[in-house]
Amino acid sequence: MNWQTRSQKYTLTDFESGFSISFAGMNFSEAELEALDSKFERAASEMKKLEAGAIKNPDEQRKVTHFTDRISYPDSDGFREVEEFSAAVRSAGKFDAVVVNGIGGSALGPQLMQFAVNGPYWNELSREQRKNGLKIYFLDNTDSAGFADLLEVMDPERTLHLVISKSGGTQETRNNMIAMEDFYASRNLKFGDHAVAVTMQGSQLYKHAIEAGYLKIFNMADSVGGRTSETAIVGHLPAALTGIDFKRFLSGACAMDEWTRSNDARNNPAMMLAAMWYIAGNGRGDRNMVIVPYSDRLVLLSRYLQQLVMESLGKELDLDGNTVHQGLNVFGNKGGTDAHAFIQQLNDGRDDFFATFIEVQQDAAKLPIGNNTAMGDYLHGFFEGLCAALRNKGRQIITIRIPQITVFELGQIIALYERAVAVYAEFININAFHQPGVQAYKLAAKDALALRGKVLDFLVQHPEFSGTACELAAAADLPDSAVEISGILDRAAVNGELVTRKSCNNNWIYSAK
Amino acid sequence: MNWQTRSQKYTLTDFESGFSISFAGMNFSEAELEALDSKFERAASEMKKLEAGAIKNPDEQRKVTHFTDRISYPDSDGFREVEEFSAAVRSAGKFDAVVVNGIGGSALGPQLMQFAVNGPYWNELSREQRKNGLKIYFLDNTDSAGFADLLEVMDPERTLHLVISKSGGTQETRNNMIAMEDFYASRNLKFGDHAVAVTMQGSQLYKHAIEAGYLKIFNMADSVGGRTSETAIVGHLPAALTGIDFKRFLSGACAMDEWTRSNDARNNPAMMLAAMWYIAGNGRGDRNMVIVPYSDRLVLLSRYLQQLVMESLGKELDLDGNTVHQGLNVFGNKGGTDAHAFIQQLNDGRDDFFATFIEVQQDAAKLPIGNNTAMGDYLHGFFEGLCAALRNKGRQIITIRIPQITVFELGQIIALYERAVAVYAEFININAFHQPGVQAYKLAAKDALALRGKVLDFLVQHPEFSGTACELAAAADLPDSAVEISGILDRAAVNGELVTRKSCNNNWIYSAK
Repeated sequence: MNWQTRSQKYTLTDFESGFSISFAGMNFSEAELEALDSKFERAASEMKKLEAGAIKNPDEQRKVTHFTDRISYPDSDGFREVEEFSAAVRSAGKFDAVVVNGIGGSALGPQLMQFAVNGPYWNELSREQRKNGLKIYFLDNTDSAGFADLLEVMDPERTLHLVISKSGGTQETRNNMIAMEDFYASRNLKFGDHAVAVTMQGSQLYKHAIEAGYLKIFNMADSVGGRTSETAIVGHLPAALTGIDFKRFLSGACAMDEWTRSNDARNNPAMMLAAMWYIAGNGRGDRNMVIVPYSDRLVLLSRYLQQLVMESLGKELDLDGNTVHQGLNVFGNKGGTDAHAFIQQLNDGRDDFFATFIEVQQDAAKLPIGNNTAMGDYLHGFFEGLCAALRNKGRQIITIRIPQITVFELGQIIALYERAVAVYAEFININAFHQPGVQAYKLAAKDALALRGKVLDFLVQHPEFSGTACELAAAADLPDSAVEISGILDRAAVNGELVTRKSCNNNWIYSAK
Repeated sequence: MNWQTRSQKYTLTDFESGFSISFAGMNFSEAELEALDSKFERAASEMKKLEAGAIKNPDEQRKVTHFTDRISYPDSDGFREVEEFSAAVRSAGKFDAVVVNGIGGSALGPQLMQFAVNGPYWNELSREQRKNGLKIYFLDNTDSAGFADLLEVMDPERTLHLVISKSGGTQETRNNMIAMEDFYASRNLKFGDHAVAVTMQGSQLYKHAIEAGYLKIFNMADSVGGRTSETAIVGHLPAALTGIDFKRFLSGACAMDEWTRSNDARNNPAMMLAAMWYIAGNGRGDRNMVIVPYSDRLVLLSRYLQQLVMESLGKELDLDGNTVHQGLNVFGNKGGTDAHAFIQQLNDGRDDFFATFIEVQQDAAKLPIGNNTAMGDYLHGFFEGLCAALRNKGRQIITIRIPQITVFELGQIIALYERAVAVYAEFININAFHQPGVQAYKLAAKDALALRGKVLDFLVQHPEFSGTACELAAAADLPDSAVEISGILDRAAVNGELVTRKSCNNNWIYSAK
């Protein structure tokens, strides 16, 4: 099959929206695709069950409703409530900025959308340029430096805070909330007058928000996981506060859902996408997925997809309890820039990846460079050039083309990958909707904090102590924890808490103070 | 060897700066390390040759001087010139912002440094908060959207432009320069009065800068590659314009260089780091390098290291001309955030990586959360917790700890990885300092632009044309390029240039207009 026939055969186009995806640059045969027929059938049938309300997240005994909720969401009371609240906030003018306090699924989607739709310099635009949309900031970690940086630019009186945690107990989010409440108290401001909670009804955060007199509490559905929550309230509220047309975003997602519900796998872009992942990686993720949108505004897409794909597919056990250690690595930034970074390796180095390139066809501005060629034509040329160069080396590529990047196309892209992840999970027989692997580190983190408590207690009780971490570990009857204790002591010393340190004989000597 | 003994044995600490790196969490034996003795020796000897001025980039017949240039740079006339120019710009007050127009090595280092040292909201700070340091923006692609976004916030009269291209012919940078010159002309402003060039003497850009009356031209050394240029003028000028103490950055880099010159491989952190990469990846990069700094301000580090490592090590041929397809994949963002994203896969999924965690020990702010535990203690707890959880699963980790993140530590980190890359390249016998793989796509991009020219010519000459891309390809006598022609026609149609398109029978029909 020549390149042209193959391109024609393996390119899927939605002529209404202009969205197209080509698998022609992937190394697969028709026979390999046919061998997946039973998997396609199973996935199609499981997707139907999922959408009909089956428990598709068995470990957590949960339904999975992000594909279906978004159909009815625009006509719901919940939707209207968000729109009305946001419109009121924007027109009242009391608030000029919103801080989104959330981590993982509560931050990555809103960050991607803000950057893609409102651009990189949104917070530097005037209120007029923003058409009354709020400036937007993210607290997406538990780093005191990130918190301190925000305070440098935040006007507390004019800032609205969204505290987003589905379970209501996410420690990082809780920490930022507590620190922010303290900050407001220190300014004699009532935090509740500036705060909105987004959480499940009855959660710890829910109760706290009531007690602290938050302006509003928005409800999160139990059946929508964090990494697939961008089309629900988690995506909606930040979007609406900054003036983004969320309904149009949902219509993009729903249009893609419609397409990816097709039983005809060869014409279903999510089925085909999952099939490419499967064939290229031998069903085990043997190739990294490199995501390169040729669009400055989509630079966060790879980070968003990294979570969606890796947290969903990186699993130890399959649905039958077999140890499978599955996964699919995702990374990338943006083209053409990446051609001046890691593309050297993709061209010449390890053949251990497949790239997904995304072209945005409309030029945001017509910028003539010379020879009847504009800046956008060069970007197109670099895109086509890299595709050709990689193909000539036998490297594998998927190409997605969209006419422009608005919320509609963003909805299409997100919905496509959500479905492809769900389908691929059926191919490899895993639960894509839980994240059991993050429990272990949370428990270990508690141990680390408990150990710190013991070390500090020891120092308070032994103000005469001077010695190495090993010696303290022995003296405090914690001999197995000397390594971790040195980490605690180093931090204490650097932060001027309870100990000083000096070096002696290639060791730190800590002295209580 | 128990965990404590192993940690003691395989942790290297610089007691003067407090920088430490531990390899104890990697799966290697003393025997595997011993087996590398001859490689260590060869690398040490080659590093000496490199620093003595040997041609270590044979394809390009170039010396490699970034390790040595930075020793003498602070005492050079060139250094003083940058400092004086920057001080004058900052105090004069004419310019309030600087646009760095450069791609790849001309952007990634300055972006990393700005974010790490000046923080994420630098451009939103008042001039007083910035202590007269300029706001800073980057044009690091050839995307008209990125350009248009910048114009929304740029005050042309008060903006200084750095045009950075070593060769002086980088197309992306040239495009942004031309578009910006046009924009200034449209405002009746003389671009030269706002522009500085950074390039090699005699380059195309050099000549242009003279003709166009640029304020200043700074010289780039032939012997410093883009991806290792952060400690040279490319890093210096943007840093100095924003008030960063570049001398201190260099002293951090030089302190690390001093340490990594040691012939004692076991006590040389770069030798050990390269050895870990080598052992973990079987000398072929079989494991991905996941970079996770527990620091919001270091979120761009993985992107910086991605270029440094992948562009240096991703090579088709070794120094003897054998086909080796080497490489080492790098990705990551920041901890603890990533624990809510891809860390699920690292814990439970494919065992195909080693993680490098970086802890910043000093808290930027003391933010008490409760139980005598501050926000920074939680971050430490999550860091230790994840290390413990991964170790329990047999996953591999390197940990770096630094007391704080200032330019000094940033210099240490960059110099450490620069040296580790150079050492690892010796281990696998490749040239780390060229990038031959990027030529192919540049040539193919020229073909793509030429093809576009032919298609547009055809449309102009055949205003009656209506048909598919295949039909146009045949009519224009370009039958092998139908696929690429459809990409050109789609862009033309979307941008309203020469053609319209409508769908018919599962195909686009294009009509000249």
